[in-house]
Amino acid sequence: MPDKKKYAIGVDFGGTSIKFGIVSQAGKIVRKMALETKADEGPKAVIKQILKGIRELSKDEKYKISGIGVGSPGIISIKKGTVENPPNIRGWGKVHLGRIIEKETGIKTFVENDANTAALGELIFGTGKLFNSFVMVTLGTGVGGGLIFDRKLYRGETGGAGEIGHVTINMNGKRCNCGSYGCIEAYTGINYLIDDVRELLGSRKESKIYEILENDLDLLTPKIISMAAESEDEFAISVINDVGNNLGCALATVCNILDVTTIIIGGGVAGFGKRLFEAIEKTARERVLKSLAPRVRVMPAKLKNDAGIKGASALVFYKK
Amino acid sequence: MPDKKKYAIGVDFGGTSIKFGIVSQAGKIVRKMALETKADEGPKAVIKQILKGIRELSKDEKYKISGIGVGSPGIISIKKGTVENPPNIRGWGKVHLGRIIEKETGIKTFVENDANTAALGELIFGTGKLFNSFVMVTLGTGVGGGLIFDRKLYRGETGGAGEIGHVTINMNGKRCNCGSYGCIEAYTGINYLIDDVRELLGSRKESKIYEILENDLDLLTPKIISMAAESEDEFAISVINDVGNNLGCALATVCNILDVTTIIIGGGVAGFGKRLFEAIEKTARERVLKSLAPRVRVMPAKLKNDAGIKGASALVFYKK
Repeated sequence: MPDKKKYAIGVDFGGTSIKFGIVSQAGKIVRKMALETKADEGPKAVIKQILKGIRELSKDEKYKISGIGVGSPGIISIKKGTVENPPNIRGWGKVHLGRIIEKETGIKTFVENDANTAALGELIFGTGKLFNSFVMVTLGTGVGGGLIFDRKLYRGETGGAGEIGHVTINMNGKRCNCGSYGCIEAYTGINYLIDDVRELLGSRKESKIYEILENDLDLLTPKIISMAAESEDEFAISVINDVGNNLGCALATVCNILDVTTIIIGGGVAGFGKRLFEAIEKTARERVLKSLAPRVRVMPAKLKNDAGIKGASALVFYKK
Repeated sequence: MPDKKKYAIGVDFGGTSIKFGIVSQAGKIVRKMALETKADEGPKAVIKQILKGIRELSKDEKYKISGIGVGSPGIISIKKGTVENPPNIRGWGKVHLGRIIEKETGIKTFVENDANTAALGELIFGTGKLFNSFVMVTLGTGVGGGLIFDRKLYRGETGGAGEIGHVTINMNGKRCNCGSYGCIEAYTGINYLIDDVRELLGSRKESKIYEILENDLDLLTPKIISMAAESEDEFAISVINDVGNNLGCALATVCNILDVTTIIIGGGVAGFGKRLFEAIEKTARERVLKSLAPRVRVMPAKLKNDAGIKGASALVFYKK
């Protein structure tokens, strides 16, 4: 049983806002707050915001804080706690963020990239509690991921392992932001997906999506597609099935490489729900090696709101 | 420095023949032999052949044998040393091969699947000596692989990790033997490749391949394509470049998932040589994430002849 009297501060460091929470070892957030990142004002201002939030929360004497975990974009060196080149933060370069926080607060601090903290969050608090090895996939603007093998985070050579978004499904396919072609992200990343659906809607005037949006396609979101599918709109259902089929294909490749067949999916597009999960699982099972197929299972992430804060705090409770 | 007085017996257990060797800790084969597998006569006859070879070699009192390593097809349980369902051996089911050999010889025995022993062979004796993490790819009838992370073999949940051959490059592409579509093996596995090249040759009457084969396309092998390319045959060069391009695409996916960028390639098709390696590396660099690209390197395996025996013996010298 987790010791309910142990707490960590989780910091979800994003490009527009920084979210902070005090999280119990059982994964419950007992206090939380947010500050703007002030990315435009440069690294000093950003670090000041991070420290401000941590100080505010650590003042609360009700909770004994065992450590601080920070989930950050960019390339992280775990040993030194440095954060290098997070996108969207001007002039950052390389910052010894972990060391700075430890020095200023006197509290042991762990820093990890946000894709990996999402996986650790599920491992320590979520669906992954039940599995020794799994692939965590986050379906958002980007398609990210993290890999857990034998209850350990697998980071690769530079902490960048698990870039599921850049698994090729069609080598001559759509151009991807990364510069390559046919990456799964170019089909299922939210912006790509919404653009594609908007275009397809041109010849699908019967779709309920028009009705829901009162013809303003600028308001299209995954949630809207979901709503249309729930009211049995054929087009919306076909969109979700296609997303599932594409993801199932990418994940079959991942399963074949890793011999890991448990897949946990979170993020905005995961809101497509049961229909999406079934489509992913069906395609992945059809495409993986026969010896793996019966073991393939695709499940929703348990952490939803505040997954970032909880994942960051998981760094403190995670035993390497 | 490896202790040159330590020796292992390596057993390369194949469907038609079993190869045996006494291998020094420095990776030198000091004695070797082969026996037919007798796969048609069922498991008892096969096991008898395995024991016969081991006994023959271990009689040699010049070499003190520290252990026996067996590289086998099929699904291997490392802890129990069992071999399950190797293809091409009738009625095998599940055999406690490691335990049987230990009991009959009194020598500590390790069993692993042959894709993984190929990776371990490179780690302990070959190109992989210089790298902490790499992806081993074997280009033969099948396209196989093994994964080394931080000088440890990564086996996945059932020992099947590293199935590089079943990375999708085109989800709607060629049917693969595994039942899926567009796997890299369906393009670069020897039989698929030879079939494709034979078909393309129909409209490439100017190719030097006709001359080399005296018009008998039944004799086509990767070696022949290589020879034609060496004498600057345009068609043969385009074939090798295509193979490299397809493999580079599959390997970019692998690098993105694993954040491992050192790739070691062995097997028959690797005989295409420098031209192939350059094409693979070029495509892989173009397609991987920008942050990984400068680190991508594609190198030939060092173990060539007797790679199977050496890889199997590496099990004895490998420190987990």
